[in-house]
Amino acid sequence: MPVNLQQATPEQLLPIQGVSLGIAEAGIRKAGRKDLLVITLDEPAKISGIFTRNGFCAAPVMVAREHLAGQGRDNPIRALVVNTGNANAGTGAEGIAHARATCEEAARLLGCHSQQVLPFSTGVIMERLPVEKIIAGLPAALADLKVDNWFAASQAIMTTDIVPKGASKQVSLDGTTITVTGIAKGSGMIRPNMATMLGYIATDAAVSQPLLDEILRHAAENSFNRITVDGDTSTNDAFMLISTGSAGNQLLLDSTSKAFNLLRDAITDVAAFLAQSIVRDGEGATKFITVRIENGMTADECTRAAYAIAHSPLVKTAFFASDPNLGRILAALGNAGIDGLDVSKVRLYLNEVLVAENGGRARAYREEDGQNVMKQSEIVIRVLLNRGESSATIWTCDLSYDYVKINASYRS
Amino acid sequence: MPVNLQQATPEQLLPIQGVSLGIAEAGIRKAGRKDLLVITLDEPAKISGIFTRNGFCAAPVMVAREHLAGQGRDNPIRALVVNTGNANAGTGAEGIAHARATCEEAARLLGCHSQQVLPFSTGVIMERLPVEKIIAGLPAALADLKVDNWFAASQAIMTTDIVPKGASKQVSLDGTTITVTGIAKGSGMIRPNMATMLGYIATDAAVSQPLLDEILRHAAENSFNRITVDGDTSTNDAFMLISTGSAGNQLLLDSTSKAFNLLRDAITDVAAFLAQSIVRDGEGATKFITVRIENGMTADECTRAAYAIAHSPLVKTAFFASDPNLGRILAALGNAGIDGLDVSKVRLYLNEVLVAENGGRARAYREEDGQNVMKQSEIVIRVLLNRGESSATIWTCDLSYDYVKINASYRS
Repeated sequence: MPVNLQQATPEQLLPIQGVSLGIAEAGIRKAGRKDLLVITLDEPAKISGIFTRNGFCAAPVMVAREHLAGQGRDNPIRALVVNTGNANAGTGAEGIAHARATCEEAARLLGCHSQQVLPFSTGVIMERLPVEKIIAGLPAALADLKVDNWFAASQAIMTTDIVPKGASKQVSLDGTTITVTGIAKGSGMIRPNMATMLGYIATDAAVSQPLLDEILRHAAENSFNRITVDGDTSTNDAFMLISTGSAGNQLLLDSTSKAFNLLRDAITDVAAFLAQSIVRDGEGATKFITVRIENGMTADECTRAAYAIAHSPLVKTAFFASDPNLGRILAALGNAGIDGLDVSKVRLYLNEVLVAENGGRARAYREEDGQNVMKQSEIVIRVLLNRGESSATIWTCDLSYDYVKINASYRS
Repeated sequence: MPVNLQQATPEQLLPIQGVSLGIAEAGIRKAGRKDLLVITLDEPAKISGIFTRNGFCAAPVMVAREHLAGQGRDNPIRALVVNTGNANAGTGAEGIAHARATCEEAARLLGCHSQQVLPFSTGVIMERLPVEKIIAGLPAALADLKVDNWFAASQAIMTTDIVPKGASKQVSLDGTTITVTGIAKGSGMIRPNMATMLGYIATDAAVSQPLLDEILRHAAENSFNRITVDGDTSTNDAFMLISTGSAGNQLLLDSTSKAFNLLRDAITDVAAFLAQSIVRDGEGATKFITVRIENGMTADECTRAAYAIAHSPLVKTAFFASDPNLGRILAALGNAGIDGLDVSKVRLYLNEVLVAENGGRARAYREEDGQNVMKQSEIVIRVLLNRGESSATIWTCDLSYDYVKINASYRS
């Protein structure tokens, strides 16, 4: 079961005027499963997006990137089409044709150009996309369109996720209440630079396109780019941020304004909640682990150190076993490739317990103190490098039998 | 059980005159277990060694590096002391004192200087080394010294290894038969730049120190630095190469000579056999997987691509399940960070089966062909990048339930 994942109720996911969501059973991989989601945007909605950096990115990623780059005042993005069950990745030219066909059919039904539609797919890789099922399912999804459909949408995008992931937040900008609502999916293949994840966040705030882009980058950098389950980056990751302007606030144009910062933080909070939810629902996860590196020379070396610890299978299995075999953390840190690291200056804390200092076990450390922390489901690994002022935080989970089980039987 | 691991018999591990090995039960971690090995070298033996690049290297690594750097004609290395059960890593200043105390006692018993002794430890990290047990065990190990003791030595250095690892090879250099014998331990925490492994290879060939160093580097680069089980690099890795000169061949001084190349290849063969044995005995391994990248622009990018595939938990669990979910290999390749990789030119083979080309599934590929390969215990993943002339090979294994089990319960 997911680790302390606070699941939103349908009522807690607040609608964003200008964003409608419709779902359908297209039967893409399994029958009787909601596997198709359409999101439509009313003008003058804006959208910003980032995608996986995997060199083998999926066909829908290529097409969505192209359509997003081409958007303008005359051809704004009008719809997003998301299917689960098949990633349409490693499918060559046929896969691209299928992604385009999906956009064309959605555009035909909506009365817009296919360039105004963004396609997204998630599921098994290197199998032909049953595009005819998606096309056949689109009318039902469009018939289902409504603004208060975020919860059903969060369910429709699940793959190996155990629970749907969604959150809303409200904040007042110069007297206008604005709302941020987001959903995400993902529970494996989670790693820096996007997870096997899809994330969709919308706000009714009015904000310029450059500032929307800036918020997207900031939110991703502090959420989806800060999590790892297994060190794998998917072919299909995407994070989209929509702004409708329907709240009626004054258009945000100044990135130094207080209102901009409030909005950015609210969106980042929602993104971070979703990102952490993905880790909490990590395949086989039994522990939620925060790895925090402090007092490094650069943020980059802190991030590398955090990932070296978060990716170590030996560290992850020790946490699964609640075994305070904490030397594995030091060994992983030693593999982070930090030039000139003086290990005698490193301090390692497990929650509040000082475990290691002076290159070895801390004098006051007792195994039972470490054991007490390891038993908990929320653990903070804190490493002080004591060579600078930078820091970085990563969220991850342990590695359990169930991770192997889920991934060994994913297609069966 | 290990994957097709050919275990040597005691008789197959040929003695090297000038190298004696003695073992004892020191009771370091568990009673009734041979856990102490002493190797002594008769003059004029030479030794060359390399160690882990982990920044958090163990105390014995620091002391062995220092003693090895200080060796010369007047103070050649006379003995190696190896204990299992405790890695003496993450043990601070006390750990270094313990490594030195081990050397001092061995030197006292052997009548040499402590700088002529190299210490090695493997086992659990960040626990105090019970040095008094090692010191108490040394006389028994010295009483056991004999030249035909390689097999017992290969057993004494095991930790989570299921089977001992050893090999011998003979080659004729200008009419003189020379022998190479080696042993190694390691089965987890195995990764580029040395595994959690200890490797000791000796030859009776006479070779100059610079050429011995060159052979060591070459052998390591084509053996222990080409394997990965779980992507973790240990704090204690060491690979030592000994040359006694007792075969009576003419001292090798020329690295372009045929004799040098024959010796280098024989030693590299033994090292590669030992390295592959470590992977075959990888924690929980059920498959032995060779990842070969060809036609890359540089050897470095080929190596990175090979490791990206070999380290992917999704790839490894798919192999464990014999599930030809081969898109995961492409996804892992896409994460290797190869600049400007044209995925439409990539060809992926599983043994002789062409799986992917033109950015997708190969036209003639049938799932049952992939399935047939996946069922086998020896699998070659071959990727043609089709952008250059370089290549690289890595050996790895799958990721099974048992990997998690072994590492979750290592200390219990």
